[in-house]
Amino acid sequence: MKRSLGARTLLYPTPAVVIGSYDKNGRANAATVAWAGICCSAPPCVAISLRKATYSYGCILERKAFTVNVPSEELVAKVDYLGMTSGKEEDKLATVGLTPVKSVLVDAPYIREFPLVLECKVIHITEIGLHTQFIGEIVDVKAEESVLDEKGATSIKRAKPFLYSPDDRNYYGIGELVAKGFEVGKKIT
Amino acid sequence: MKRSLGARTLLYPTPAVVIGSYDKNGRANAATVAWAGICCSAPPCVAISLRKATYSYGCILERKAFTVNVPSEELVAKVDYLGMTSGKEEDKLATVGLTPVKSVLVDAPYIREFPLVLECKVIHITEIGLHTQFIGEIVDVKAEESVLDEKGATSIKRAKPFLYSPDDRNYYGIGELVAKGFEVGKKIT
Repeated sequence: MKRSLGARTLLYPTPAVVIGSYDKNGRANAATVAWAGICCSAPPCVAISLRKATYSYGCILERKAFTVNVPSEELVAKVDYLGMTSGKEEDKLATVGLTPVKSVLVDAPYIREFPLVLECKVIHITEIGLHTQFIGEIVDVKAEESVLDEKGATSIKRAKPFLYSPDDRNYYGIGELVAKGFEVGKKIT
Repeated sequence: MKRSLGARTLLYPTPAVVIGSYDKNGRANAATVAWAGICCSAPPCVAISLRKATYSYGCILERKAFTVNVPSEELVAKVDYLGMTSGKEEDKLATVGLTPVKSVLVDAPYIREFPLVLECKVIHITEIGLHTQFIGEIVDVKAEESVLDEKGATSIKRAKPFLYSPDDRNYYGIGELVAKGFEVGKKIT
């Protein structure tokens, strides 16, 4: 039996990723978001949503670029901090001890300590309501050698990312393999 | 040291959710997508992306409504099947033995056996490239009693959702609590 919970932002899982951008003075800013997801395969694109009140909103609107930095578990306290505070009056990356690296492909910084980073150029902006959605074309993905397997492919087990759960607002790790995709469903026919 | 992997759709985690819709004859259709995410808090909205070639694309374009059905682990084979096949020439829900339920709020069916469902009205459509993005306003969330805790809140541990990993195209479960959100970051200041 299903119970109605009302109109809410409830989805499992949502990511916890850090958006990198430059402000008008060229200072690197970073903000954690959970309202994000891949939205196109060709060109490869990712969508992120920001409130107009955030410092990142103005930065990305001006520079038309951002990075998506996927953290590993040991970065969780820094990620949480970057989601609670504003870059308006603070160099948040300096506070938490993370290193912005200037991208040569887009007008935004990525974060050195993060194992996986996506460099994006804004190609669509949609005003939705409290949040504005920025769709970025992913022009490159960069990964730390340490999260690549012997074939040079990224491994979720090595990257140790985590997810955000909108119900209890906590971060959870990645669990065990449940099934092989494009494989387990073949049993049905 | 970071290695460039090229322009790719790589993000951790991405969801594995099933989109419910009606075709022009009123037959329920269901398709699994990983390109999805919450995109606005007020009004609560979720974005999903579909290729024009899919049957769901035409259904949602016509009805301007869809549901997002969040599966639990035991549904993984059915979810995988619903992502590999097309509803053009097959009643996929009948094939896998799932039950469409007519929503009274939106012109789309949700799936009875799924623990968590979001009923959505399309409010924005963005043509990106291979994929088209549909932004749906979430008009209600419904959850099975079995995934609600003693306070009536949904619990990710009870819902047992899983995620899709775009690197190896496999499904993984939800792991252990990594840290409490809006809490662990406070230690930094």
